[in-house]
Amino acid sequence: MSKHTVDLTIVGSIGIDTIETPSEKRENILGGSVSYACAAASFFTHTGMVGVVGSDFPKAFRDTWENMNIDLEGLQTVEGKTFRWSGVYHENMDNRDTLSTELNVFETFSPELPEDYKEAPYLFLGNIHPALQLHVLEQVRNPRFVLIDTMDLWINIAKPDLEQVIGKCNMLTLNESEAQLYTGEHSLMKAAAKLLDLGPEYVLIKKGGNGSMLFTGDDIFLLHAYPLAGFKDPTGAGDTFAGGLMGALAASGKTDKEAIRQAMVQGSIVASFGVEEFSLERLVRLERDEIENRVSEFKEMCRL
Amino acid sequence: MSKHTVDLTIVGSIGIDTIETPSEKRENILGGSVSYACAAASFFTHTGMVGVVGSDFPKAFRDTWENMNIDLEGLQTVEGKTFRWSGVYHENMDNRDTLSTELNVFETFSPELPEDYKEAPYLFLGNIHPALQLHVLEQVRNPRFVLIDTMDLWINIAKPDLEQVIGKCNMLTLNESEAQLYTGEHSLMKAAAKLLDLGPEYVLIKKGGNGSMLFTGDDIFLLHAYPLAGFKDPTGAGDTFAGGLMGALAASGKTDKEAIRQAMVQGSIVASFGVEEFSLERLVRLERDEIENRVSEFKEMCRL
Repeated sequence: MSKHTVDLTIVGSIGIDTIETPSEKRENILGGSVSYACAAASFFTHTGMVGVVGSDFPKAFRDTWENMNIDLEGLQTVEGKTFRWSGVYHENMDNRDTLSTELNVFETFSPELPEDYKEAPYLFLGNIHPALQLHVLEQVRNPRFVLIDTMDLWINIAKPDLEQVIGKCNMLTLNESEAQLYTGEHSLMKAAAKLLDLGPEYVLIKKGGNGSMLFTGDDIFLLHAYPLAGFKDPTGAGDTFAGGLMGALAASGKTDKEAIRQAMVQGSIVASFGVEEFSLERLVRLERDEIENRVSEFKEMCRL
Repeated sequence: MSKHTVDLTIVGSIGIDTIETPSEKRENILGGSVSYACAAASFFTHTGMVGVVGSDFPKAFRDTWENMNIDLEGLQTVEGKTFRWSGVYHENMDNRDTLSTELNVFETFSPELPEDYKEAPYLFLGNIHPALQLHVLEQVRNPRFVLIDTMDLWINIAKPDLEQVIGKCNMLTLNESEAQLYTGEHSLMKAAAKLLDLGPEYVLIKKGGNGSMLFTGDDIFLLHAYPLAGFKDPTGAGDTFAGGLMGALAASGKTDKEAIRQAMVQGSIVASFGVEEFSLERLVRLERDEIENRVSEFKEMCRL
């Protein structure tokens, strides 16, 4: 495991997933927001993972991360079972149902940052309870750029906690339906305006296969999703996008709008590879030049 | 009425519409595919309208077209009532239901082109029965570029006619759901491949507020929709987009991919204005520099 200082700290969930799609069922595969996000970020920068696994966690999964040069000093292993999730995708993969969730060791997780993670200039608060996200934010020293992700569950049951932590972050990201749920606005323009009022400089709304929109108080950046003829598993696509974005941004050493645009392109392209297979199976054998080639191809598709 | 030769001929429906949205109901307003398409094209090129109205057709509607400098030599006025349509939009305007359709004079419509329309280098076969589209196509002499639009109705009841005419056109445009219906493919990449097999060089799939995709055998062009905080009436947006596209393409005098990309941007921006109000109400007072300003703003939003 590499021991040099991390440039990007990512916190989130780690799960052992069982996923069923219309064409395939896969049991006990590596999942969780921090797993996807760190894998994506690892193509660009030295990334530290903050999460928890149980004593049943397979060595092979840990090896997967180490082979991607992800720093695991922030990974806690505690007695008990790892968080488990299972879900089934509907016809056309547009929606999914959760079949079961077993929190296990995740239930009592308190993310604690190793000393060098506290100095990392970039921080991605992946999708976990907002009180835990706040706990992480309180440990870091003077971060340059903090991205926070969330989900419908926390919007529904922990909105005050969520608002408190969002106000301390540079960028908020959520799905189209979550932005609408949060604000009660169907129009993403109106939803984004309300979310910006919570305090972040940037609001990034993800629209799945229809791309994403970055809002600031002044302007909007529109990004397509790379068009795929097919994909196997969209689980973690948003985490992969956001993780890749933060990895590329950390690698740039910048935090301005232009750098964020370019980082979004990188993150989006990494996510387009990620969904081609289950879990991290495509990302573990993805090469940097494959990313660059697809970025070039994508830019040509979008050229006006 | 201007009498110089038209550069673009457009055929389609003309209707008197009654439209209900969650916030407003408007009765007996000017509608129809050729009305929207000619209005949009009129910003860029001299456009001739081919359609039919009844003896009840209000002079004010005809004046609207003449004020936009649309050539009406191809407009037939026959004894009887004009085609009427009424529809109601659902909450959020994502879908609509047709409440009534009265074909009236449209039932026996046979589009006949004035002599100078037959020489127009650009032709847009708007959404009418494919047998009528074919009848128009057979009258034109050596057109440089022909775009055809269609709808779910013809895919369901007149597929053989539709396939015959599509094979003779340069570009086919349809909505996302229609492309999926036509081909049985959920993936737009796969749907487009099947549609290209019918013969057109270009397939343009419209995704409403999520933009559009232009497919050729070799590559893909991705275009966002201009983001609007709100809009009043999406009726005719696809016709406006396609009409503006063909108008801008005719004005360029070109038919290559690069010219088509630029023409798509122009058409999309005109459509973004069109939906801001009902019928042609926004388009009749739209200025060319408003289009150009929004195009510039839009390109900045999309810059990678």
